[in-house]
Amino acid sequence: MKNFADRLIEKITAFNNPTVMGLDPKLDFIPQHIIDSCNKQTDNNQIASAMAIFEFNRMLIDATYDIIPAIKPQFAYYEMYGIHGLETLHKTVSYAKSKGMIVIADAKRNDIGSTAEAYAAGILGCTVLSDSSSVSMLDADAITVNAYLGIDGIEPFVKVAKEQGKGVFILVRTSNPSAGDFQDLTLQDGRKLYEAVADRINVWGSELIGENGFSSIGAVVGATWPEQASDLRNRMPSAFILVPGYGAQGGSADTAACSFNQNGTGAIVNASRSLMCAYKKRSDLNETEFQIAARDEAIRMRDDLNAALLRKTK
Amino acid sequence: MKNFADRLIEKITAFNNPTVMGLDPKLDFIPQHIIDSCNKQTDNNQIASAMAIFEFNRMLIDATYDIIPAIKPQFAYYEMYGIHGLETLHKTVSYAKSKGMIVIADAKRNDIGSTAEAYAAGILGCTVLSDSSSVSMLDADAITVNAYLGIDGIEPFVKVAKEQGKGVFILVRTSNPSAGDFQDLTLQDGRKLYEAVADRINVWGSELIGENGFSSIGAVVGATWPEQASDLRNRMPSAFILVPGYGAQGGSADTAACSFNQNGTGAIVNASRSLMCAYKKRSDLNETEFQIAARDEAIRMRDDLNAALLRKTK
Repeated sequence: MKNFADRLIEKITAFNNPTVMGLDPKLDFIPQHIIDSCNKQTDNNQIASAMAIFEFNRMLIDATYDIIPAIKPQFAYYEMYGIHGLETLHKTVSYAKSKGMIVIADAKRNDIGSTAEAYAAGILGCTVLSDSSSVSMLDADAITVNAYLGIDGIEPFVKVAKEQGKGVFILVRTSNPSAGDFQDLTLQDGRKLYEAVADRINVWGSELIGENGFSSIGAVVGATWPEQASDLRNRMPSAFILVPGYGAQGGSADTAACSFNQNGTGAIVNASRSLMCAYKKRSDLNETEFQIAARDEAIRMRDDLNAALLRKTK
Repeated sequence: MKNFADRLIEKITAFNNPTVMGLDPKLDFIPQHIIDSCNKQTDNNQIASAMAIFEFNRMLIDATYDIIPAIKPQFAYYEMYGIHGLETLHKTVSYAKSKGMIVIADAKRNDIGSTAEAYAAGILGCTVLSDSSSVSMLDADAITVNAYLGIDGIEPFVKVAKEQGKGVFILVRTSNPSAGDFQDLTLQDGRKLYEAVADRINVWGSELIGENGFSSIGAVVGATWPEQASDLRNRMPSAFILVPGYGAQGGSADTAACSFNQNGTGAIVNASRSLMCAYKKRSDLNETEFQIAARDEAIRMRDDLNAALLRKTK
C-alpha cells in the first residue's frame, strides 16, 4: 500500500503544482445557466440545488484535472442539501477519482474512539470494523480532523491511514480570523496551544513517514498566519501541510509559501472561491465560459505559488 | 420563540428525568430478528443496515418517549451507511419529534464562519442563508460543536439558536480517556484549557439566558471526570450541561450529578449503549423483548440519577 504523502507528492511533482481545489459550492457561486437548467428538470428545490452543484463540480474538475492534483470538498456545503447533497458529494468524489485526482475530505471530524472509528470507516473507507461489519462510504484519500479530544479520537484515523494508504490532516492553526481565540493561548511551559498540537502530530505521525520524508499524518496551517506557519514548518519537519486561506480569505503565495520547506516541498495550498468564482472577475468572458476562467486562474495560481517558492528557496 | 434551555427544562421537569437517550446504533447492538427481517427485504447491505437501524431506533423511541425527554443521535453511525444512513437519521429525527422528544444532534461540527453557517443551516435548519437561499435539512433542536476555531465558528450556531429557539452544546471536557491530552494543558495564567473554553461559553451564552436562568449555549462535560465537572458547574453557572459517559463509559449517577446545581437542575445525562443494549444483560427476556429491557433500564437510570441528585442536594 503506497503511503498517502508519497502519492500526493508524486502528483504534485508531476503537475509541478502544489494546489488543491476546494469545492465548497454555495449556490451563488454557480453560473445562472446551470441553476436554470437544473430547475427546469425538477420542482424539488433541494434536488435542483444538488444537481446544479454536481454539474458545476464536474465541469470544474473537467477544466482542471490535468493541472491540479487534488480536490477538497467541504462537507457542510453538501450536507445542507440533505440526502441529495450527500449524493452529490459521493458523485463528486467518484468523478474526481475517476479523473485521477486525490480527494481530501474536509470534514473536520472529532469524537471519542468508538465514534471516530465509525467516521474513519464512513469517510476513508475501511474493510472491517470492531463489530466485523464492512462498510465503505466515500473512500476519500484523506480527511481533516480536530484533535481537541486527544489521541483516542485520532487513533482510528491513523489506523486506517496506515492500513489503507490514506492521509489525515490535523487542525493546528486554522485560517479564520478568530483562530487565535484558543490556538494562541500560552501554556505554562511557554508554548502556544497550536504548538502543543503540532508537537503531538510529530509523535502521532512518526510511524507513517514515506519515501519522501513526509508523514501521512499531516497538519492544517492557514496561509493567513505566515509567522505561525514558519514556526510550524520548522516544528513539524515531517508533517505534510494542508494550507487553506489563499485567495478569497486573504492569504498570498508568499504567506502560503511559509508552510513549505526550503526546497519548496511539504505542503499543498487550497483555493476554493478564487477558482470556483474566477469567472465573476472576467469581464472578457461570458459566464457560460466559467471553465476557461477556472483553468486560467488555476494556471495563474500555480505560477504564483511556484514564483513564491522560487523566491523562498533562493 | 421559546428559549431552548427552557424547553428542555420543561420536558425534564415534566418527566422528572434528566436523561437523553443516545442513539449510536452499531449493528451489533441490534437484535438479530430485526437484522434478519431487513436482510430478507433487500440484497443491498447498506440499505438493509440502514433499515435495521431505523427499525431499532423507532422501537426504542416507542418504548421510552413518555419517560425520556430527548434523544441524541451520533452522526457517525448514520453517515457510515452513506445516503441510506442519512435517510435513517432524518427519519429518526422526524419520528422522535413527532413523539414530542427533543433532538440533540451529536455532530461535533467545527469550521470557519462561512462553513459553520452552512452546518448550522443544514443541521438546525435555518430560513435564510447569506446568499438568500433557504434550506432545512434536519431541523434538530440542538447541536454539539467543537470550539477550537474560536468565536468565528461558533457565532453562526449562536445566531440560529437565538433566532429559532435552538441550542448549542460546546465541547468543554469530553468523556473519553484521552480527554486530558489537550484539555488539561495548563495555561500561563493558571487555568486549564478546558477552563478557558468554559470561560468563553459564559460570554458567548450571556445573551441567550432563559426564564430558568440557563443559556441555550451549553457545554459538554463527561460524567467520567467528577472533579472537573464540579469545577465547571461552578465556573459556568448559566450553562446547561450535556453529560455523556454515564453507563458503558464508566460514569455513575454520582459522577454525573457533579454537573448539576445544588438544587438538582442544569444538566441532562446521556446514555447510549446501556439503554440500547439493556436487553443483552437480561437473561429473563428474549431479545425480541428488547423494548421492555430498554424501558426498564430507562426507569432504573432515572431513579438512579434522581437518588444521586437527592444525595447531592441534601
